[in-house]
Amino acid sequence: MTDQFTFRVLATDGKARRGEISMPRGTVRTPAFMPVGTAGTVKAMYLDQVRDLGSDIILGNTYHLMLRPGAERMARLGGLHEFARWPHPILTDSGGFQVMSLAQLRKLTEKGVTFKSHVDGAAYEMTPERSIEIQGLLDSDIQMQLDECVALPAEPSEIERAMELSLRWAERCKTAFGQQPGKAMFGIVQGGDIGSLRERSASALKAMDLKGYAVGGLAVGEPQAVMLDMLDVTCPVLPADKPRYLMGVGTPDDIVKSVMRGVDMFDCVMPTRAGRHGLAYTRRGKINLRNARHAEDHRPLDEESDCPASRDYSRAYLHHLVRSQEALAGMLLTWNNLAYYQSLMQGIRDAISQARMDDFAAETSERWARGDLPAL
Amino acid sequence: MTDQFTFRVLATDGKARRGEISMPRGTVRTPAFMPVGTAGTVKAMYLDQVRDLGSDIILGNTYHLMLRPGAERMARLGGLHEFARWPHPILTDSGGFQVMSLAQLRKLTEKGVTFKSHVDGAAYEMTPERSIEIQGLLDSDIQMQLDECVALPAEPSEIERAMELSLRWAERCKTAFGQQPGKAMFGIVQGGDIGSLRERSASALKAMDLKGYAVGGLAVGEPQAVMLDMLDVTCPVLPADKPRYLMGVGTPDDIVKSVMRGVDMFDCVMPTRAGRHGLAYTRRGKINLRNARHAEDHRPLDEESDCPASRDYSRAYLHHLVRSQEALAGMLLTWNNLAYYQSLMQGIRDAISQARMDDFAAETSERWARGDLPAL
Ligand SMILES: [Zn+2]
Ligand SMILES: [Zn+2]
Repeated sequence: MTDQFTFRVLATDGKARRGEISMPRGTVRTPAFMPVGTAGTVKAMYLDQVRDLGSDIILGNTYHLMLRPGAERMARLGGLHEFARWPHPILTDSGGFQVMSLAQLRKLTEKGVTFKSHVDGAAYEMTPERSIEIQGLLDSDIQMQLDECVALPAEPSEIERAMELSLRWAERCKTAFGQQPGKAMFGIVQGGDIGSLRERSASALKAMDLKGYAVGGLAVGEPQAVMLDMLDVTCPVLPADKPRYLMGVGTPDDIVKSVMRGVDMFDCVMPTRAGRHGLAYTRRGKINLRNARHAEDHRPLDEESDCPASRDYSRAYLHHLVRSQEALAGMLLTWNNLAYYQSLMQGIRDAISQARMDDFAAETSERWARGDLPAL
Repeated sequence: MTDQFTFRVLATDGKARRGEISMPRGTVRTPAFMPVGTAGTVKAMYLDQVRDLGSDIILGNTYHLMLRPGAERMARLGGLHEFARWPHPILTDSGGFQVMSLAQLRKLTEKGVTFKSHVDGAAYEMTPERSIEIQGLLDSDIQMQLDECVALPAEPSEIERAMELSLRWAERCKTAFGQQPGKAMFGIVQGGDIGSLRERSASALKAMDLKGYAVGGLAVGEPQAVMLDMLDVTCPVLPADKPRYLMGVGTPDDIVKSVMRGVDMFDCVMPTRAGRHGLAYTRRGKINLRNARHAEDHRPLDEESDCPASRDYSRAYLHHLVRSQEALAGMLLTWNNLAYYQSLMQGIRDAISQARMDDFAAETSERWARGDLPAL
């Protein structure tokens, strides 16, 4: 344990890095996948299970939590860790992304965003300062600056305007965050799909000497190649001794390829959301349990997994649960999916240590491409 | 373990009995509460949790399982125990009750019931023989006769007709079941709210020398006093050396009062269904977590429980999960509710052994009446 927020690179392989982020609540092994705990719960999971799968950190959504139960109420209840019974590190987003995508009647100015809650219609104002205040009330360990993320494709002038605004908001968030040695506030690189804007954004944020850097505004509809190009121009500009977080990404393939471009942290709703829709991520690729081919298949999803959901339940049973819309379907498939994601991250970390990340990536993607077991 | 289906009374206190039903898959401590696993899953629970709470047996719904995944398919998959990963005893109902309440276009004759599936509209015929055949395909340990259960209030002539039909179907089910030393087929006492019909039904079933007896057609809308009156006339007619099962009952109070009239087995959807609707059963009565009084209450549902759901999570968190319609709300509250039901059954069994069932009932109901903790 440490009373400071620190990051150490333990090994590199090409641009890929294995490292450790330490903070008072614990150590995060990187590259790390952060399960999404939107409203203080990783959907359909007990947090003890999430932890047991090797999750060192989870993500909380500031927007959802500020609306319900509310930031001040959460503080009175002892903060998010106490509330949700997760004593380990938590990263929170700024709330900006959800304000832009979920709230009604948004109005964006230099000062911030005003909006109405999608829960009860109440009016809120979100400024860079208020976002940091809320994340502090939640007692978040890694906080994100408020930024403006534009959907792609977009006009270059619009992308540039939002990027510049995000830089000014980063300065205000840095000031609002102040000195908190055990916690971190990360800046967010914006710039859409325009390399020169991404570079400018990353350079300006680097000059602010923040404790970590996120890459935002990607995986918002653009082809994977565009995302990877943006990482190719962005990561080299960012300081080597600070963690890099690619927000909202992604598929297992996105993650492997992004790690190889120097990314250390990821979050995504895919494993949890897919689990609630009958889809299983496995080392043999994505499997749709709704498919009739599983109806009499006594085999488990993955006989070699050490996750009970993957190893002990038949595909026939999972198929039945999915078709019957039983809660246990989402419980088991989410469990399987997070287990697969976390085992992938462990595989990545080991491969970097062994300087065989290229081989690991090739083997892993070859196995996905080979696909599922032949039907019985 | 035993290769025979047997029942032993270990202790009595008034009409209440403590006992043991043994069969090849395990022993059921009575009075027993059987969690309802409608479609091969106790909703929102892992069956390992259900077992760990002290459940010796669960109930499966023949109607749901015959429609999906289907009885023959279930047999090919190794039976319900293998399918759902529950190697312990299972009781199945006959399917009749759900045919009458859920299926469309029913037609009832002496031979049986024809109906259309509520899942896909396919036509089915359910006869006494087919019900026993299906329960055999599921590999159920305790099977129920097909019966006709009429909703109360009903005309006496209608109640009598259904009761007499149920007796004829009991004979046919007995014949269809044949000799299966490790399993049991229970007859079902009908007769609505008419004591003389209940007596006739119980006498006629007793004469068939079945391995166990259910009391059906109660808890279908009549006052509790009527249900208890029917138990008062029925139980004394049933043989003392066979288990008695009150179908679909009930509240904790129904269970305590029915045990004191000689009932050994219960099943009910209340603890599981209530858990999915924000309601918690506790030793302080029923608690509605949706209520705003819990919003900032850091106390658990029951600090003395040894169930994590009851002891470790704050009411504020449970309230938040219920309001946010999170899956974890149903998972935690169902867990709490089944824990409470099973701890109540253990309390009942201990009280009978100690010949203090009257005191136990009075203390328990006094505690319910005192109600929940004062609000903070
Ligand atoms: Zn994502
Ligand atoms: Zn019931």
